[in-house]
Amino acid sequence: MALERLVVLVGGVGGAKLALGLTHILPPESLTFIVNTGDDMTYYGLHISPDIDTLLYTLSGRVDPVNGWGVAGDTRIMLETLRDFGESPWFGLGDKDIATHLIRTTMLNQGYRLTETIARLAESIHVLPRVLPMCDAPVPTMIETVEEGTLAFQEYFVKHRWQPTVKAIRHQGAEKASLSPEVKQAIAQADAILIAPSNPWLSIAPILAVPGMREALMARDVPRVAVTPIVNGAAIKGPTAKIMAELGLEVTAESVAAYYKDLLTGFITDVQDTFQNLKALRTTAFDTMMINDTRKIALAREVLDWIG
Amino acid sequence: MALERLVVLVGGVGGAKLALGLTHILPPESLTFIVNTGDDMTYYGLHISPDIDTLLYTLSGRVDPVNGWGVAGDTRIMLETLRDFGESPWFGLGDKDIATHLIRTTMLNQGYRLTETIARLAESIHVLPRVLPMCDAPVPTMIETVEEGTLAFQEYFVKHRWQPTVKAIRHQGAEKASLSPEVKQAIAQADAILIAPSNPWLSIAPILAVPGMREALMARDVPRVAVTPIVNGAAIKGPTAKIMAELGLEVTAESVAAYYKDLLTGFITDVQDTFQNLKALRTTAFDTMMINDTRKIALAREVLDWIG
Repeated sequence: MALERLVVLVGGVGGAKLALGLTHILPPESLTFIVNTGDDMTYYGLHISPDIDTLLYTLSGRVDPVNGWGVAGDTRIMLETLRDFGESPWFGLGDKDIATHLIRTTMLNQGYRLTETIARLAESIHVLPRVLPMCDAPVPTMIETVEEGTLAFQEYFVKHRWQPTVKAIRHQGAEKASLSPEVKQAIAQADAILIAPSNPWLSIAPILAVPGMREALMARDVPRVAVTPIVNGAAIKGPTAKIMAELGLEVTAESVAAYYKDLLTGFITDVQDTFQNLKALRTTAFDTMMINDTRKIALAREVLDWIG
Repeated sequence: MALERLVVLVGGVGGAKLALGLTHILPPESLTFIVNTGDDMTYYGLHISPDIDTLLYTLSGRVDPVNGWGVAGDTRIMLETLRDFGESPWFGLGDKDIATHLIRTTMLNQGYRLTETIARLAESIHVLPRVLPMCDAPVPTMIETVEEGTLAFQEYFVKHRWQPTVKAIRHQGAEKASLSPEVKQAIAQADAILIAPSNPWLSIAPILAVPGMREALMARDVPRVAVTPIVNGAAIKGPTAKIMAELGLEVTAESVAAYYKDLLTGFITDVQDTFQNLKALRTTAFDTMMINDTRKIALAREVLDWIG
C-alpha cells in the first residue's frame, strides 16, 4: 500500500530529523505534521513557537546543523544589546529568528489563528508539507519540579537546563483548547499516523492533551505507529531518559510503548534493543539513530515501507 | 545668572545635536528634555519612539555619526530576514535598535507609562539628564497630503521620504492627552525654556499640542527662547523649508518666530541671516550650523550665556 496521507505527531529536534527524511520519500501533499506547541511562550512580547520553528527551519534547510534548532549562521546582536541595557535574557533569540517571531506575533495581534500564522510563514519559505500547530489556543506545558516548584516549559528546559527533578507535568488550559478544523481534517483523512521519536512526556503528551485529539486518532482504523525515542536505555538528545527515571519508569522502549497505551497499533524499536512486547503490538526494529541526512532518509523509507 | 533648571523642547536629529552641546555645559541635574513623541508608531508590534531614541543614542554616544539617528555600526539582519519571508519592510530596524524597542514595548504591555519606560532605558545607558516624552498618551502626527491622502508621520517621512505635498498636520488624539507629572514639574521649576532648532511644524508643534503645554510654558515668567531651524532660506536637514513653502509661508527665520507667536521672549537666528524683528523679541545671531561636536558645544555655550 502506498501511503497517500500520513499524519505525523512531532516535537522538536529529534522529530524534525525524521520529518526531513519523510519529505525525501513522500510528496508534500501526502504529509501533515501536527506539532507540539506546549513549549510556546511569550518572551519580550514575542510569541515564540520553538518546536514549530525547529520544524520550519529544518524543512526549509535553514536549521543550524550543530544545534538542530535555530537558524544556521544566526547572530545575537539584539540579545547582546539587551545586556547593554541591563537585561539578563536567558532564552536565545537570534537576529534572523526574531523575524519569524515578529511576523507571527504581528499576525496573532491582528487576530489570525496560530495555524494561519504558521501557514503563512511556511509558505513564504517554501515549506510545502502542511505544518499544523496542535491547536490554536495556548496550552502551556507546566513542569512541577522538586527543587524549583512549578516552571513554565522553557524555564525548565532552557533557563534551568532541564536539571530540576520532575514530579509532574501539566497542560495548562487544555480544557479550553479544541482541535482546529485543519487538524480534524488531517486526522480524518489520514491513511496512517506516525508518532515521531520525540519526547513522549514533553513533546507528544501536550499534543494528546488537546481535547478530542486522542479520540480522533483512535477513531481511525489505520496503522498508528510510534518510533522509539529511547535506544539502549538512553535518549539520543534531551531529557527523555532523565524524566522517565524521575517519574519512576524503567528507561526502556517498552515503557514508552506502555505510555502510549492503546493509541498504537505498531511500534518501532532500535536494532540495539531487545523489545519485550507485552502489548501484542506489531513491532519491528530499525537503526533509529539519525546521525546524518542519509540515515534520516533511510529510516523514513524503512518506516514507510513497514507501515505500508 | 547661572541657569539651574533648563527645559528644552526637542525633536529629532537637529535638536539632539544642540542637546549634546548643552550636556557639555550644564550638569545633568540642570537639564530636562521634553521630546516629541508624535512620530511614535507601532511597527511589527514594536513601540518605536524615533525622536526619543535619537536623543538617547546621541547623549549616550551610541548614535550613528553619519545619519544622526540609529545606533553606530548597527546591522539589519532581522530586517533582511523579514524580506526572506516575503515582507516588504519600509522602516529601518537595526538589530541593536530592536533591543530598545523590545524593552519599551514589554514595559508598556506591562502597564508602565511611556515616561517610565524611557527613564529606565536612559538610566541603563547612563543618560543622566531627564528625558521626558511630551506625554504618556499616543498623539500621532497625521500628515494630510495632496498626493497620498492622510499619512501617519513615519509613512510620510520614511516610506514616502517627505515627498508628498503637505496640506495640513493633525495631532490625532491630542484632546485625550495631558501633561505628565514629570513634565508639569519640570516646566514649573524651569528658570529658562529653550526650543531646539527642530522642525517647528513636525517636531515642536506636536509637543505644543498636548493640552496644557503651551499654557504651562506661557505661565512661566522666565526666558523662553527658540533657535532658528532655518538658515539662509533653507533647513539644515529634513523637510522644514519644503513644508513652510507648501503651507504658503516664506522660508525665513521670521516665519518661524511668527509661528511660535507669543510663546517666545527671545529668538536666536543664524549669523548668515538678517532678521526683521516684527515682534519686538529679544534677538541675537550665532553660528547655528552644528557641523561638529565643537560647534555643538560652542553654540550651546553661546545660547546659555545669552539666555543667562
